[in-house]
Amino acid sequence: MSRLNINQVAHVVSISVIFESIFMLSCVAVAWYFKESAVWSLFFSFLISIGLGGVGFLLTRKRILEHSVKDSFMSVVMTWLVISLFGSIPYLLTGSIPLFADAFFETVSGFTTTGASILKDIEIVPKSVLLWRAETHWIGGMGIIVLVIALLPSFKIGGQQMMMAEGSFFNSEKIKSKTIDVAKRMWFIYFVLTVAEIILLAVAGMDLFDSVCHSFATIATGGFGTKNSSIINYSPAIQYIIIVFMTLSGMNFTLHYLLFHGKFRKVFKNEEMKTYLAIILISSLVITFGIQSAFNLGWEKSFRDALFQVSSIITATGFVSANYELWPDASKWVIFLVMLIGACVGSTGGGIKVARYVVAFKNLKHYLLMTLRPNSVVVTKYNGVPYSPEVSTGVISFIFIYFMTIIVGTIVLILTGLDGVTACSAVTTTLGGIGPGFNEVGPIDNFSGISVFAKYYLSFNMILGRLEIMSILVLLVPSFYRK
Amino acid sequence: MSRLNINQVAHVVSISVIFESIFMLSCVAVAWYFKESAVWSLFFSFLISIGLGGVGFLLTRKRILEHSVKDSFMSVVMTWLVISLFGSIPYLLTGSIPLFADAFFETVSGFTTTGASILKDIEIVPKSVLLWRAETHWIGGMGIIVLVIALLPSFKIGGQQMMMAEGSFFNSEKIKSKTIDVAKRMWFIYFVLTVAEIILLAVAGMDLFDSVCHSFATIATGGFGTKNSSIINYSPAIQYIIIVFMTLSGMNFTLHYLLFHGKFRKVFKNEEMKTYLAIILISSLVITFGIQSAFNLGWEKSFRDALFQVSSIITATGFVSANYELWPDASKWVIFLVMLIGACVGSTGGGIKVARYVVAFKNLKHYLLMTLRPNSVVVTKYNGVPYSPEVSTGVISFIFIYFMTIIVGTIVLILTGLDGVTACSAVTTTLGGIGPGFNEVGPIDNFSGISVFAKYYLSFNMILGRLEIMSILVLLVPSFYRK
Repeated sequence: MSRLNINQVAHVVSISVIFESIFMLSCVAVAWYFKESAVWSLFFSFLISIGLGGVGFLLTRKRILEHSVKDSFMSVVMTWLVISLFGSIPYLLTGSIPLFADAFFETVSGFTTTGASILKDIEIVPKSVLLWRAETHWIGGMGIIVLVIALLPSFKIGGQQMMMAEGSFFNSEKIKSKTIDVAKRMWFIYFVLTVAEIILLAVAGMDLFDSVCHSFATIATGGFGTKNSSIINYSPAIQYIIIVFMTLSGMNFTLHYLLFHGKFRKVFKNEEMKTYLAIILISSLVITFGIQSAFNLGWEKSFRDALFQVSSIITATGFVSANYELWPDASKWVIFLVMLIGACVGSTGGGIKVARYVVAFKNLKHYLLMTLRPNSVVVTKYNGVPYSPEVSTGVISFIFIYFMTIIVGTIVLILTGLDGVTACSAVTTTLGGIGPGFNEVGPIDNFSGISVFAKYYLSFNMILGRLEIMSILVLLVPSFYRK
Repeated sequence: MSRLNINQVAHVVSISVIFESIFMLSCVAVAWYFKESAVWSLFFSFLISIGLGGVGFLLTRKRILEHSVKDSFMSVVMTWLVISLFGSIPYLLTGSIPLFADAFFETVSGFTTTGASILKDIEIVPKSVLLWRAETHWIGGMGIIVLVIALLPSFKIGGQQMMMAEGSFFNSEKIKSKTIDVAKRMWFIYFVLTVAEIILLAVAGMDLFDSVCHSFATIATGGFGTKNSSIINYSPAIQYIIIVFMTLSGMNFTLHYLLFHGKFRKVFKNEEMKTYLAIILISSLVITFGIQSAFNLGWEKSFRDALFQVSSIITATGFVSANYELWPDASKWVIFLVMLIGACVGSTGGGIKVARYVVAFKNLKHYLLMTLRPNSVVVTKYNGVPYSPEVSTGVISFIFIYFMTIIVGTIVLILTGLDGVTACSAVTTTLGGIGPGFNEVGPIDNFSGISVFAKYYLSFNMILGRLEIMSILVLLVPSFYRK
């Protein structure tokens, strides 16, 4: 196996930083339009990023060979880290977030589309910086699409295998040459959904600037808004629009592509999508009954609150339209359970994801059947296509390591002095890229009160979750660094 | 596949009830010796059990064919249920536990070697009934040994496979004909350990009756004692003796057999045993530092408290020598983590068990290596012997369903009105066959305060855990009941 090519990695990272700096430029324009004093700080951020990115690009452009698997892993991890470092500059220079640990946390939270924030008062932050904050989500979402197509398939943990099982969108033999093609199609869907939501939100009465920010955060399943009260004070129409787009963003983007081409039957046969929608519906109904009987706010309002929070949490968006910490215990537990489920594979959403649970339960059924009929051959199928035992072991190994990561993280955070519920929910919500947790990091609180160490740990946790754990763990295998 | 043979099942259950009644007779003898008024109630319990068991035996003795897999599953589940029903009779007739839900809970807790109790005051219960309570553990432990050898191997979830990987104790081809042989050897170890502990406890100054009861409860990893304060007020020497025997009882009994035959090298090569002992040591040291700095009770006392509680929880015994609920948060979390680990396969202990975690982490490493070298062949080995992908998928599927059972159970119990910590720890401790949990079901509390529904649910949970979940789930597969 070939050795790690540092030059190659640095080249990819440099291109990403240049790409990032172009987005910063759009914030400069907005600051200029709104006559905000942040305009110069943002312009300097842009200059630093494009300058250093450009120098990196020029220094590394020689000897560009084909990427090895090792190069890809290292590139992805380093890109996420380095763009988070550069992405912190606008917060620091504008003074919106003066401390580095906080700015880094906020940027990682943006790029990983988590949406956990350390900002106590969002509304005093300049609009141009709020746009940057929303753009980190949108850029992160675009990155995830590449990740899902190009890197995660190596792990056989359910990213691409599950999409391939779909059968029509990918052709497994030609997959490598098609990566860019596929990415372009998915980015197209991503773009169309974003524009559609901006228009609908604006039509429903939301300010255009807020519509753009909220749409960026919705389609990337991020959760950074522009108001301290998140979505709580917006109209029911706006809340319903966001519910619809959160739910769409949590779905496998290949399904949107199929829908776009009128292949409805294929879409409605998709097992993950049906399970995903069923989970949303059932969880929302359970919570609706719970909160309606507790608060008697009217069935429509109760259902809307339940549906909004469930969609927001399952898709790992993290917008809030009601403070679920006030809900009855059982309803809160449903929310926590949904945190552990996650969205669909091939989406920008986070968490363990529905397809993996579907496979895990299929395996379970398979083992029970095999136990009863030891000599028969039972083939496990997903969306009607058989999958290998390797895929199934990979999928359950992922679920296992995911739970272990939560348990270890909870202990680490408790040692830093947090209470059990805060610690466990903070780890779960950052690992899943969700945003809000419970107690000190609940839906109407934020992460500003936790220690600097905990902020770095949770930043690491967000990247760990976003890169589906394995991409980071593989860097810890000693043979990764051998020739 | 053959159909379920009800006659066969009823026959096995009847034999078990007769076996149970003989133990009841020993309690009658003890009641007579101590001149307790319970003597007649116990004698009636014996008569009912041997009478109904005998009638069942006579009615079903015809047509005894070879057992099918289905018959085995149904026999095991029905046996555990029915002996728990009969085992409740002594509590009910003596009036020690007047309510059926409570008596059933206590008996299931006994036979599953859990040790969770609904008794508020143990010391007012007649000695003969306390002996019955301890005997339910000891009978349960014997049953588990058969279970591990005869039934669980069908699931490939790590019971026998792991023991077979040991290589010397079992011969996989001749395994079926050797089941009884193997059971006899393991029962021999079980018996020797019990007698050794009785002698040592008596020598260390414990009353002979208490020594017998505590030894029954230790070797079966049960946890029913004879004092309200469990082991808290016993001498350090007695506590250390119990620590040693708890730790031995949590080990794979085939290792004791190998030790007995002087095969030390094989034993010290066993990966599970080394991991198990390392976990006990490391967890105890972590807790020692935590509680020593919090309470300054002296290093020996802190270490003994830590080691006792860790050994008790990891082996699923559930004896208590210190109230761990008063410990610092981080120490409590270590205890909770240890609850999720469990003892070794081939022991009477409960929980997920160390070998399964060893396999899960080996799988993880395997997948990372395979990702880096997609074209190489890496064989996974346990104790130096390769194991099949089926075993590894089975093992992780088990861990998955174990965690799902905890999550579902927690929600069910919260709906009955328990708080989250009580609910989650009650489910975890009963599923693992441990005994004490946290909050309302903490180490110095008991299960008397929870609702009748919750008592039945947790009784079911204890059986579910004891039969390693799969044995119960297999009964839910519709084709189980087809011809």
